[in-house]
Amino acid sequence: MSDAVDLAFDEVEYIPAVAQDASSGAVLMLAYVTPEALERTRETGLAHYYSRSRDALWQKGESSGHVQHVEEIRVDCDGDALLYLIDQEGGACHTGYESCFHRRLDGEVVGEQVFDPDAVYDD
Amino acid sequence: MSDAVDLAFDEVEYIPAVAQDASSGAVLMLAYVTPEALERTRETGLAHYYSRSRDALWQKGESSGHVQHVEEIRVDCDGDALLYLIDQEGGACHTGYESCFHRRLDGEVVGEQVFDPDAVYDD
Repeated sequence: MSDAVDLAFDEVEYIPAVAQDASSGAVLMLAYVTPEALERTRETGLAHYYSRSRDALWQKGESSGHVQHVEEIRVDCDGDALLYLIDQEGGACHTGYESCFHRRLDGEVVGEQVFDPDAVYDD
Repeated sequence: MSDAVDLAFDEVEYIPAVAQDASSGAVLMLAYVTPEALERTRETGLAHYYSRSRDALWQKGESSGHVQHVEEIRVDCDGDALLYLIDQEGGACHTGYESCFHRRLDGEVVGEQVFDPDAVYDD
């Protein structure tokens, strides 16, 4: 891939990336990427993000095995947000749900739990 | 709607909101919301956001008429990102495309242009 689209990394340290299931269209999660996270994503084909709280690069699924195979990356009109079209192994959310967006604003759960987090994460 | 889910507004001034077409599942745009923007969205049923560059509340479509009717609002597991499930009038992108995410990272245009921006915007 070439870098025809200018991204906003000259203005900000990281930009949000939305992960969308390439088949179902479900929006699975939102996380942040640095140039390094994006480069690792493109090199490996697996979604990498930047943890703001840990100030660290991370690969989605590095502990759970629930990796995201990136089929396509899109960029928005302003170059300050990305869309990862992905094939998700397991579930995207650390709570066991398919999507991190599994609740309505009033707390009602509308998403599907697809794995038991206690069986996947050690802590 | 009650406020059963705690949002991250005690830690940050604004959080990202992803607008997804409720029918097609297309991810249309990403913008930011403050508590005030979210309140106006819930009161009116029309998507409101916060412009970081202008430090101002704005209603999507206030100049173009391309408003977003919000059918449902979801919140992610950490309470620091929202998903607006919307019915979009016209197109979401100021460039005339249905989605702001109409380009691949290499610049290839993959989205559909649905209106002529010169006919919609005065400047």
